[in-house]
Amino acid sequence: MSDIVLNGKLIAFEGIDTSGKTTQARRLVTRLRESGYSVVSTVEPGGTVIGEAARAIVLSKPGEHSALLPFSELLLFMISRAQNTYEVIRPALQAGMTVVVSRYRMSSEAYQGYGRGIDLEFIQSLNEHATDGLRPDVTFLIDISAETAVQRKTTEHDRIEIEAVDFHRRVRQGFLELVAADPHAVVIDGDRTPDEIAKDVARHLQL
Amino acid sequence: MSDIVLNGKLIAFEGIDTSGKTTQARRLVTRLRESGYSVVSTVEPGGTVIGEAARAIVLSKPGEHSALLPFSELLLFMISRAQNTYEVIRPALQAGMTVVVSRYRMSSEAYQGYGRGIDLEFIQSLNEHATDGLRPDVTFLIDISAETAVQRKTTEHDRIEIEAVDFHRRVRQGFLELVAADPHAVVIDGDRTPDEIAKDVARHLQL
Repeated sequence: MSDIVLNGKLIAFEGIDTSGKTTQARRLVTRLRESGYSVVSTVEPGGTVIGEAARAIVLSKPGEHSALLPFSELLLFMISRAQNTYEVIRPALQAGMTVVVSRYRMSSEAYQGYGRGIDLEFIQSLNEHATDGLRPDVTFLIDISAETAVQRKTTEHDRIEIEAVDFHRRVRQGFLELVAADPHAVVIDGDRTPDEIAKDVARHLQL
Repeated sequence: MSDIVLNGKLIAFEGIDTSGKTTQARRLVTRLRESGYSVVSTVEPGGTVIGEAARAIVLSKPGEHSALLPFSELLLFMISRAQNTYEVIRPALQAGMTVVVSRYRMSSEAYQGYGRGIDLEFIQSLNEHATDGLRPDVTFLIDISAETAVQRKTTEHDRIEIEAVDFHRRVRQGFLELVAADPHAVVIDGDRTPDEIAKDVARHLQL
C-alpha cells in the first residue's frame, strides 16, 4: 500500500542546527529503499554546481568590510533552492521517485524570517518563485529546544553562545508556528534516541 | 553652484549592451573631478568581494545540466547590488561624495523583467530590499537601437544574433517605459559621438 502513496512525493526534514534532521533524512532514505522505493536524497544548500557555488559564498569568511548581508545570505539560499528544485527535485518527482530533502522552504522562513527579522511575506514570495510553487507533501520538523541545540554545539557558555540561544529560540518558535499553519507538516520530538525518532517518522508514513 | 547640487548624490547610467554607458560614466567621473567633486565610481555587477563572487557565477559556463536559471541570475545581480549599496554607495553618499554607477536598479527591471519575462513587481520588490529604498537622484539612459547594439557586438547575422535583436529590443523598450515613468530619469540619444553624448550629460547636470 505504501508504495502507492510515496511515489512522486517530496518529503522534507526541517529543524534547528543539531536537531538530527539530516540523520533522520538518511535513515528514512534507507528505510524507503528497503521498502522498494526509488529515492533521491538531497541537502540544502548545495546539491548542484551553482548551489555549491552559492553555499561556498555563505560559508566563506571574508574581511569585516565584505560581511555578507542577511539579505544576500537569504538570496544565496534561494538560488541554491531554485537550482536544486529545477535540476534535481522536479525531474525525480516527475520520474515517480520519492525525494527526501534536508531543509527546504521552511528553513528560510524560520531562520531568515523569525531569526534575522527579514519580512516573512517577502521570503514566502521568494520561495514561491524559487520552487515554482512546489511544496513538500510531508514536512517533518525535528524539534529540540534552543538550549539543547547550543549545548550540543558547545560546552562553554560565553556571550556568543547566549546570543546563539536567543537566536535559535526565535528560529525554533518560527518553525513551530509555521508547522502549526501547515496541514502537511508534523512536529517530531527530537529529544529522544535516533531509533525512537526514526520509528516515529516511519509510522507517520505508514512504513 | 553645481558643487552644492551634486554632493551626496547618486547618478546612474543605464542602457543596453554596447550603448556606451560605461564610457560615459567614466567621462562624467573625470568631469566631476575636474569640477572639484569627490567622486566614487562603481559598476554592477561587482565592486565588492561578494559582488565579484556573484558575478563570477553569472559569467561561468557550467555544463548544460547546471544552466543558471533566469531567477538565479536575477538574485545574483541583487546580491551584488545589495553589497555594493551597503559597502560602497551609502557610505560614500553619507560622506558627501558624488557616486556614479554604471547599471543599477533599472537594469534588472529592463533585462530580467522586460527581457526575460520575470514578474516586474517581484523585481521591484527585490530592488527595494537590495537597496534599502535607495534610488538614483539622476538616471541617464544611453539609448541606442537593438539593431545598433547587435551590430556593434557582431559582424555576421546568424540565428543567435537574430534572437539577440529580439531580446535587446524588448530590453530597450523596457528601459524607455521605465524612464518615462521615472521623473528623475532622462533619455540620452546614444547614436552620436562620445563627445556629443558627454556634452549632453554634462548639460543636464549644469556642469
